[in-house]
Amino acid sequence: MSPQADTHPPSPDTVDSEIGEAIHALASEIYPICRSITGAGVRQTLDILARHIDLRRVEIPTGNRLFDWTVPKEWNIREAWIKDASGHRIVDFAENNLHVVNYSAPIHATVGLDELKQHVHTLPQQPDLIPYRTSYYAETWGFCMAHRQFEALPDGPYEVRVDAELSDGHLTYGEYLHRGESEREFLLSAHICHPSLANDNCSGLALLTLLAQELSRRSTRLSYRFIFAPGTIGALAWLHGNETAAARIDHGLIVSCVGDGGGPTYKRSRQGDAFIDRAMACLLRDSQPRGRVLDFFPYGYDERQYCSPGFNLPVGLFQRSLFGTFREYHTSADNLSFIRPRYLGESYHLVRQAIEIAEGNWTPLSLCPMGEPQLGRRGLYAATGGRKTGQATMALLWVLNLADGRHSLLAMAERSGLPYAEIADAARRLHDNGLLGTVSDQTADRPAPEG
Amino acid sequence: MSPQADTHPPSPDTVDSEIGEAIHALASEIYPICRSITGAGVRQTLDILARHIDLRRVEIPTGNRLFDWTVPKEWNIREAWIKDASGHRIVDFAENNLHVVNYSAPIHATVGLDELKQHVHTLPQQPDLIPYRTSYYAETWGFCMAHRQFEALPDGPYEVRVDAELSDGHLTYGEYLHRGESEREFLLSAHICHPSLANDNCSGLALLTLLAQELSRRSTRLSYRFIFAPGTIGALAWLHGNETAAARIDHGLIVSCVGDGGGPTYKRSRQGDAFIDRAMACLLRDSQPRGRVLDFFPYGYDERQYCSPGFNLPVGLFQRSLFGTFREYHTSADNLSFIRPRYLGESYHLVRQAIEIAEGNWTPLSLCPMGEPQLGRRGLYAATGGRKTGQATMALLWVLNLADGRHSLLAMAERSGLPYAEIADAARRLHDNGLLGTVSDQTADRPAPEG
Amino acid sequence: MSPQADTHPPSPDTVDSEIGEAIHALASEIYPICRSITGAGVRQTLDILARHIDLRRVEIPTGNRLFDWTVPKEWNIREAWIKDASGHRIVDFAENNLHVVNYSAPIHATVGLDELKQHVHTLPQQPDLIPYRTSYYAETWGFCMAHRQFEALPDGPYEVRVDAELSDGHLTYGEYLHRGESEREFLLSAHICHPSLANDNCSGLALLTLLAQELSRRSTRLSYRFIFAPGTIGALAWLHGNETAAARIDHGLIVSCVGDGGGPTYKRSRQGDAFIDRAMACLLRDSQPRGRVLDFFPYGYDERQYCSPGFNLPVGLFQRSLFGTFREYHTSADNLSFIRPRYLGESYHLVRQAIEIAEGNWTPLSLCPMGEPQLGRRGLYAATGGRKTGQATMALLWVLNLADGRHSLLAMAERSGLPYAEIADAARRLHDNGLLGTVSDQTADRPAPEG
Repeated sequence: MSPQADTHPPSPDTVDSEIGEAIHALASEIYPICRSITGAGVRQTLDILARHIDLRRVEIPTGNRLFDWTVPKEWNIREAWIKDASGHRIVDFAENNLHVVNYSAPIHATVGLDELKQHVHTLPQQPDLIPYRTSYYAETWGFCMAHRQFEALPDGPYEVRVDAELSDGHLTYGEYLHRGESEREFLLSAHICHPSLANDNCSGLALLTLLAQELSRRSTRLSYRFIFAPGTIGALAWLHGNETAAARIDHGLIVSCVGDGGGPTYKRSRQGDAFIDRAMACLLRDSQPRGRVLDFFPYGYDERQYCSPGFNLPVGLFQRSLFGTFREYHTSADNLSFIRPRYLGESYHLVRQAIEIAEGNWTPLSLCPMGEPQLGRRGLYAATGGRKTGQATMALLWVLNLADGRHSLLAMAERSGLPYAEIADAARRLHDNGLLGTVSDQTADRPAPEG
Repeated sequence: MSPQADTHPPSPDTVDSEIGEAIHALASEIYPICRSITGAGVRQTLDILARHIDLRRVEIPTGNRLFDWTVPKEWNIREAWIKDASGHRIVDFAENNLHVVNYSAPIHATVGLDELKQHVHTLPQQPDLIPYRTSYYAETWGFCMAHRQFEALPDGPYEVRVDAELSDGHLTYGEYLHRGESEREFLLSAHICHPSLANDNCSGLALLTLLAQELSRRSTRLSYRFIFAPGTIGALAWLHGNETAAARIDHGLIVSCVGDGGGPTYKRSRQGDAFIDRAMACLLRDSQPRGRVLDFFPYGYDERQYCSPGFNLPVGLFQRSLFGTFREYHTSADNLSFIRPRYLGESYHLVRQAIEIAEGNWTPLSLCPMGEPQLGRRGLYAATGGRKTGQATMALLWVLNLADGRHSLLAMAERSGLPYAEIADAARRLHDNGLLGTVSDQTADRPAPEG
Repeated sequence: MSPQADTHPPSPDTVDSEIGEAIHALASEIYPICRSITGAGVRQTLDILARHIDLRRVEIPTGNRLFDWTVPKEWNIREAWIKDASGHRIVDFAENNLHVVNYSAPIHATVGLDELKQHVHTLPQQPDLIPYRTSYYAETWGFCMAHRQFEALPDGPYEVRVDAELSDGHLTYGEYLHRGESEREFLLSAHICHPSLANDNCSGLALLTLLAQELSRRSTRLSYRFIFAPGTIGALAWLHGNETAAARIDHGLIVSCVGDGGGPTYKRSRQGDAFIDRAMACLLRDSQPRGRVLDFFPYGYDERQYCSPGFNLPVGLFQRSLFGTFREYHTSADNLSFIRPRYLGESYHLVRQAIEIAEGNWTPLSLCPMGEPQLGRRGLYAATGGRKTGQATMALLWVLNLADGRHSLLAMAERSGLPYAEIADAARRLHDNGLLGTVSDQTADRPAPEG
């Protein structure tokens, strides 16, 4: 690539506030929909996202084999409630779609309290919240409710109804490919299977949609593939149908829970030191607050599939708070007031910076390697000596010192401890002053070790 | 090896208490004997151990060369005492064999207090304890006594007598080989040269004897060689006579001081990352309490000889408290009440687990590497989603994720942070469900690095 | 080299106090001179140093190209002052040469307070100190003074005079080469361009001069090149004229600020694990107080030039306090009372120890590698067993254990945690006792990794 490309990002503050509001608005739009791993909720959500980007919808019939899995029946639900003896609806799917176990089998029966209890999930430690529970692959019916309400229930009888259908249909996912100069790809994926949970993962769906929209308006070096698919089965569907495209993935990020005030958090890919792992570690080292980088572990979101041993792709997970570590996780408290425009904006900015690194990383070669060049006569060094040196000057010195053709800008940022953007800016200034040439495009490669 | 072999150990609690009592009983039996690096004490001890295992006794004549060393004269002692002016025995070997310097030359003389003092060892910091002292290779006579008693001694004269003999004879050691399917060996060694010191090393002798007895009743893959030999000279005698056998040693543990309440402690072999080093580090990471792993240093027990540069064998040292770090060390306080059945049992369990790893480690290969297999329909995954995941499920996910043919079970335990036994159990369940195959037997090898 | 060479250094205490006084005396002699990057001050200083060693003076004409740089005009100053309205000299170069901006252009004018302020530098945070400021490559005039005095200045007018000359002349540096058996070189360099600053760098100039004097009286294996040159431009001048000699540099130390009570500090070369980096890290690990080792960064003294990517020489920086981190740095408080004979002596001792390692490091090969040799019969081991072992015995055991032909003495000191001098002494004793042979001279090489 041409090192003249300005890799200097626009001011984060401006980016963050505007985009953060826009992400929150889109997340709010899709929040009320009852999604599951199949069914109308996924399609409704994709319809909304498709107002922003030219989304391709993929439908795979029930019964199709996806590696070790089979596409399940399609689940669609109309209503669900529990009525007490007086006919009063004590829980109602219409009020909160978490009240029904996701993928619940249909039921219409009158049951006593004891039988009801075997089908009700609560959170004794958080007695006012409704839990989120699923039962995709074991056919059963069930409800979720606040523990406090549950404990006060009289003996019954209760009329329970889940007006749902499990029938042959399709698995649905959405895909958007932004083509760049190169066929090599950067994968960005968010799961679309959770019902009304704002952080997990309306936030990720909305962030990636608006990011795809921004990329669609610019030219890029790499191609960017966005996937909005149900967790596990959706990722397997994409992988099963796209083994060739999978082999073109140089970098990947799973994006979820990006709207809360924790973190930021990055979980490395199984490879552990892939380019995306290094880029994210560098960005989170310099973020405010400093982020947390975790080693890969085989539990979480769709990085589980992309990082399975047969694929072993360089795909990491980006979040604010790590899943399972915040009290709102998988409860009715993961609502629209839990996610904030500010944090959504910061998350957007971090993902965008990772893209900037993947796009803009290059390996400078000093044209003046014997001793330092005289920066002063080029206006790149303070005229008065004896004082302390600022970060911008340090970045110039680091880039020159490491411009031996074996250090990419990312490697320089890693070794110097300076932010990538500062290093990239220094390299551009030095290149503009005729002090740096390029070795070759080394974006996705590790720099060779020092000889 | 066949991965069907159940590597799941029996419940530690049951193992520990029974075997701990048995080890303590055997240690108590050999405790009173006055051992040294040669002589009748060693033979008497071996006689007792031979009631449990078919021990081979090796005798090497005085004067034989063992590398840089020469087999010394055989030392045998009948009695030793100091009498005061009134003929009262103020110290008596018959009461505690630590009272005489081990290998003391014979003496029978009447001496003044000043001369006596030059031959008496005490511990001013621990005035009530008798120290343990030796003088193997400098011929002199001497006594050890409590400092408090020593300070109260009147002027004398004193009659001193060491009725001992230093004469041509033999160096004696015991050896037991349990043959397995393979000629490759696991060495287990305890020193037999210390007199009445319970932890150092009646505990090690008793533990290894009962472990040998247990192994003698089962089939193993590896062969197990047990050596009960005097420190330094005994190890050199074995190495000198067994250079071929030494080359077959894949793993080795020196076992001493395994009955106190400290540690557990493992000191790495000189190689530092041998299979035994990795296995012990993994076990002590997960032990209760968590153990301490030390880098090799060339002072201690017979790992000094096995890890000398000409042999450089993968032999580490296993202890509870590290030698020299507990106040009872090399004093009369290292007695039978200092060692406890509970700690002896835990030590036994840890050594046995190391053997299980050496026996049972294998390298799985996923038969379903593209994405995760569907564990749910095999009953290996919770039916209800949305909740936290337990350690047993995490072990299944880790094994599947790392089953790329480059990670042995031990490597999986290391990377996942899960106990080896949990990983081994998960691998067995996955194998039983047809999800794992085997690459080959890689027990003693490091897994190849990830490509 | 012959391992018989006694690498045991003389007692540090004796060395330190005598040499510390001598270094302080020489530093005091050169302290008053107004040095700059060119001019009479450099020559005067070299004249004084040349009383101790046979210094070669190199003069390079103004206008010569040195890589990206050009030799500037020569600067010489006779007097400089500011007079107030009453004709009183409020600052006078004759009193303290820091009062004039180093390399100030000539001026003789009458100016108001406002104009004067634009040419005066002060330290508001340290109002009683005069700062040190330079303007080498931007032609301007200027003064430095105490902020307290500056703030009390009335309106003026002021007569300002800098009677200086900027004219074609030469860049001057001094060089001394002590030839050893080998052509391979150890570079020792101190900057000579700072005016009356005692620590920075009269201390370094004086230390290296007396070290050169000491070396001139002995035979060495390596050759030692001492360079006394102006910062940056002087190092570039030497490198430009000596590319062949530069390729012979195996080890190098920049020496500055070696007289204060902080540190000691070592900043690694760009290579990071060069022999000199390992030697200095080992020495500072064991120094009293323990020193600090920093990774390379491209700001500081002439290691910037030696470690530029086109040279990438193994040259580190040795200091007491790191530059820029002590309050006296680049102020009039960096005077002769700030540097102390004791610290100068300790610094000398540390540099000398680094030389001892470069001279004396060798790779022993045990002649008795099968088990341990019997040290006791050679008088190298305590006759009475059972007690704790001292550091000297541990050094013997470590050397024997690592004498596999793959560990130099330095590698042994690193792995054992024992001081290099202790290891070297043990190796000598073992060699004298016929227990060690030599592999070959491996002074400058890393030991091969363990196979």
